[in-house]
Amino acid sequence: MESMTFVLFGATGDLAKRKIFPAIYNLYLDQKLPQPISVIGLGRSNLSHINFQEKVKESIITFSRRFEHETAEMGDFLNAFRYNTLDVNNTGDYQKLLHLVKQREEELQIKENRMFYLSVAPEFFDIIALNIRDSGLGATNGWKRLMIEKPFGHDLQSARQLNKKLSSAFEEEEIYRIDHYLGKPMVQNLEALEFANPVLQSIWNKKHIANVQITASETVGVEKRAGYYDQAGAIRDMVQNHMLQMLMMTAMNLPKKINASEIRNEKRKVIEALLPVKKEDVHTQIVRGQYISGEINGQRVPGYKDETGVDSDSNTDTFIAARVWIDNPFWSGVPFYIRTGKRMREKSTRIVIEFKNTLDLNQKVEPNLLIIEISPGENVSLQLNSKNPMNNGNIEPVRINFSCEDSVGNGSEVPEAYERLIYDALIGDSTFFAHWKEVELSWEWVQPILDAFDENLLPFHEYSSGSYGPDASNSLLLENGFKWWLDEKIQENKEKLLLK
Amino acid sequence: MESMTFVLFGATGDLAKRKIFPAIYNLYLDQKLPQPISVIGLGRSNLSHINFQEKVKESIITFSRRFEHETAEMGDFLNAFRYNTLDVNNTGDYQKLLHLVKQREEELQIKENRMFYLSVAPEFFDIIALNIRDSGLGATNGWKRLMIEKPFGHDLQSARQLNKKLSSAFEEEEIYRIDHYLGKPMVQNLEALEFANPVLQSIWNKKHIANVQITASETVGVEKRAGYYDQAGAIRDMVQNHMLQMLMMTAMNLPKKINASEIRNEKRKVIEALLPVKKEDVHTQIVRGQYISGEINGQRVPGYKDETGVDSDSNTDTFIAARVWIDNPFWSGVPFYIRTGKRMREKSTRIVIEFKNTLDLNQKVEPNLLIIEISPGENVSLQLNSKNPMNNGNIEPVRINFSCEDSVGNGSEVPEAYERLIYDALIGDSTFFAHWKEVELSWEWVQPILDAFDENLLPFHEYSSGSYGPDASNSLLLENGFKWWLDEKIQENKEKLLLK
Repeated sequence: MESMTFVLFGATGDLAKRKIFPAIYNLYLDQKLPQPISVIGLGRSNLSHINFQEKVKESIITFSRRFEHETAEMGDFLNAFRYNTLDVNNTGDYQKLLHLVKQREEELQIKENRMFYLSVAPEFFDIIALNIRDSGLGATNGWKRLMIEKPFGHDLQSARQLNKKLSSAFEEEEIYRIDHYLGKPMVQNLEALEFANPVLQSIWNKKHIANVQITASETVGVEKRAGYYDQAGAIRDMVQNHMLQMLMMTAMNLPKKINASEIRNEKRKVIEALLPVKKEDVHTQIVRGQYISGEINGQRVPGYKDETGVDSDSNTDTFIAARVWIDNPFWSGVPFYIRTGKRMREKSTRIVIEFKNTLDLNQKVEPNLLIIEISPGENVSLQLNSKNPMNNGNIEPVRINFSCEDSVGNGSEVPEAYERLIYDALIGDSTFFAHWKEVELSWEWVQPILDAFDENLLPFHEYSSGSYGPDASNSLLLENGFKWWLDEKIQENKEKLLLK
Repeated sequence: MESMTFVLFGATGDLAKRKIFPAIYNLYLDQKLPQPISVIGLGRSNLSHINFQEKVKESIITFSRRFEHETAEMGDFLNAFRYNTLDVNNTGDYQKLLHLVKQREEELQIKENRMFYLSVAPEFFDIIALNIRDSGLGATNGWKRLMIEKPFGHDLQSARQLNKKLSSAFEEEEIYRIDHYLGKPMVQNLEALEFANPVLQSIWNKKHIANVQITASETVGVEKRAGYYDQAGAIRDMVQNHMLQMLMMTAMNLPKKINASEIRNEKRKVIEALLPVKKEDVHTQIVRGQYISGEINGQRVPGYKDETGVDSDSNTDTFIAARVWIDNPFWSGVPFYIRTGKRMREKSTRIVIEFKNTLDLNQKVEPNLLIIEISPGENVSLQLNSKNPMNNGNIEPVRINFSCEDSVGNGSEVPEAYERLIYDALIGDSTFFAHWKEVELSWEWVQPILDAFDENLLPFHEYSSGSYGPDASNSLLLENGFKWWLDEKIQENKEKLLLK
C-alpha cells in the first residue's frame, strides 16, 4: 500500500471518536495501514497536536475492541497524528492545512497521496470540496480521494446539486461515498455466496425464487437525532440508501469479472430496472407509519410525537414498507419487499429469500428459505424440509445454518464496517462504495414517494412501539399470497434448530 | 392397526434378545402395537411360557434404551408372550404351533392376521416357509406376512432358488425382506430431502452433480463372525445389499406418488440401469482389499488372516471400492463411488454429493458438497463457499448443517432401525423393505464380480488396519479427477464448523 496523508474533517466530532479513530487503530494493529502515514485532524476548536493525540488515545481506549493496554507501539501510532484548526469557510485555514500537509509529506517522505475524509454535517460537503480544489490541496502529484458520509442530498434535486459541486473538485473514481451497510460482512458476502457457489447460483433467479424480503428493524426510537431525523424520515434515512443498496446487492447479476467497476455496473442495472412508482400509485406499493407509545422488552416507551425535539404534530415516517418490482428478464414477476422502522419488536437486519413451492404433496410443507442474517450476528441458513424421526417421520422444516461467529468463538473479532470501508478506500477499492449513478437512480425512484408524502396522498398509519409495524405492511405481502418470514421466530430459533 | 399374531422364529437367539424384543417393547411404550397382540416365540430349547417371558424381560432391561424400571404396564406387555418349542424340520411342531396360535386368537379374539418373523440362519428360510404353507399356518382368513433377515442368497443362483421356495408359500407383497440400512433415519430421509425441497430437487441431477460417494466404513474387524464372514466377504456382506440399496435411494427419481410400490418401482429402475461390469473388466471398476495388522485409535490390532476362525491363506475381501455407472438419461456420465471396509480409520456411513464446479474465478474454490451423515449421528450439511471476515474476506468453504440429534438433545431417543422396520411391517408398509426384483438385480450386477474374485482376475490389495483402504481406492477416483471427500475431516469438522 502506498504511503499517504489522511486528512480528517470533523476530527473532534462524535463519529471520529466512536468509529474512525478506533477503526484506524485496528487497521494499524493488523498492519493494514501504509508505512509511513500522516494523519491530520481538522476541527473548529483550538487543539495542540499533543492534545489531539490525547483525544485519539482516549477514543481508542474507550471504543476499540482491540485495545488491551498502552504499549510503545501505540505511542508510535499516535505520533502520526497532527491537528489543524479549520473553519470550513475560511480559505486561509486551507492554506495553513496545505502547509502542514506538505511539511509532513517532506518530513516523512510521503508521496502526495491524499485522502480527504469528510466526517461533517452534509451542508459542508460542497464548500469543503470546493476549497480543497481552490486551495491547491487537490493539486497533487500522487492520487487524491474523497470519502464522504451520508446523507447524499435531501432529494433528487439537492443530490444532483451536491454531486455537481463535488464533481468540480473530484473525479467520480476519486469519490468514495460511504454506505456503512455495504461495509457489513454479510452484505459483502452476498456476491460471494452467489458467485462462489454453483448450487446457489443455479437457484438464484425468478424461476426458483418466489419473493425476497429485506428487513432492517430497530428497537430504538429517534434518540438524540430528532433534529435530523424529523426532516429525513425512514424513507431518506434508510430506504433511499441502505435498503436499496441491499436490494441491489441481492438482485444484481454476476458480472463476468469480479471487480469494482463490473459489480457497480451490475448494481446500476438493477436500480435502473426498478419499476417506477408514480406519485398517484404510491399508496398501492408503499406503507408508511409512525410509532406511538408501547412496550419493548417490558419497557414502556413514548410515541414519536412525544420524543424530545419532535413536533407534536409531526407526520414524519418512522416506518416504511415497500413492494418493489425489478422490471428485467431476470426478476420480472418476483416481488422484493423492503421494510424498515424504529421502535419495532426486534433489532434485526436480514434478507429472506423464499423459494417457489412447486411440489405436489399430500402433506403441506413450508417453502425453502435462504436466510441471510446481517445483524446482529452474521449468519446464513437454509430452511429445508426433513423427516423428523421423533415424530413418526413427518416432514418438518429444519434450518441448516452457518454462523460467522461460530468460527471465531464470538463476533467481537469480526472487523467493523468502518474498518473494512476505510481499508478499501486506502487501497483504492471502490466496490463497496455507492457510485453516483446508484445514488441518483435511487433518488429518482424515491422522489415520487417523497412527493406523495408531502401531498399526503397515502394513509399515515400509526403502529405501537414493540410491534412489527402497521398491519398494512402485512397486507402488502398478503395481496400476493405471502407473509413476512421469521417475525417472532428469530429468538426461538436461536434456542432450537428444529422448528416446531 | 389390526390385531395380530406375531410369530418369532429364533426367539432364543442373539438378534431377538438384542434387537427384536427391545424394539417391540419400545413400540409398545409408544402405543404402536396393535391391541390386543399375541406374540409367540419359537426355539429349539424347552422353555415354559413364564421362563420365556422372563427372558424377554431380561432382554428389555439390558437392551431397551427406554427401560427405566419395572411397571405394571410391563407385566401386561409380557403377558402377551407365549413360547412353543420347535424343530424347524419337524412338521408335528408346526401343528402344535398352529394349535397355540389359534388358541390365543380365540382367547384374545384376534383376527387371523399372522406375521412370521424369521430370525434364524439363512439355510432354514426355505424349510420354514414351506412348513408354514403345509401346516396350514399360512391359510388364514386375515393377512399373513413374512419378515426375513439377510442374507438373501449367497449368489444369484442361490438367491433365485430361495425366492422360488418362498414364493410358493408367500406372495411377493407378503414378504418383508429386511435391509436394516433402509431402517436408518437418514436413509429414509433421502427421498424426503429431495421430494420436499424444491431447491434440492432442482440440483439433484447430472446437470449439477459431479459425482456421488457412498462410504460405509467400520473400525471393527471380523469379530466373532468369521465363520459367516470368511464365506461372504465385504462384497456379499455389504455391497450386494446395503451399499446398492443406498445407491438406489440416492439415485432414484421422484415418483409421481409417494407410496411403497411407486418408490420401489423407481428404485428398481436405478438398479436395472446399472452398467453391467463384465467379469474381465472387473479389475477396472472394482478394488478389493484385505486388512493387515495396524493401529486404530492407538490400539494395535491383528491382520485378517490372524483373526480367530479365519484361514491363514484366506483371500476373502474385507474392503471393496467400486465405480458404478448408471446408464440412464438422468445419471449417465456421473460416477457413483461406493466403498466399504472393516478395520478402517473411522466408523462412518455417509453419502457425499459433489456438485459440479462451473465457476470461472481467479481464486480456487472448493466444490459445493451435500453431506448426508447416516451414522454415527444423523446429519445433513451443505458445504458452501463464503467470505471469511477474519481472513481479509477470502473465500473459504463453510459447512451449514442440521443434525437430528440437536433437535432432541441427543440421539438416544431416535427410534432404532428395527423399531421402524417392525412397525412398518405391522402396518403393512413395505416402502423400506427390499423387493425381490431389487435383490435379484443386485445379485445380477454383483455376480461377475464374484466370478472375477473366484478366478482371481483382479489384484488383491492389502491395507493397513486404521487406514482408508488400499491406495487403489484413491486411484479409482483420481482417474476421473476426483478424490474421496471428508477422509480425516469428520472429527475435525465436529470441532469447528469453519474448515481451514
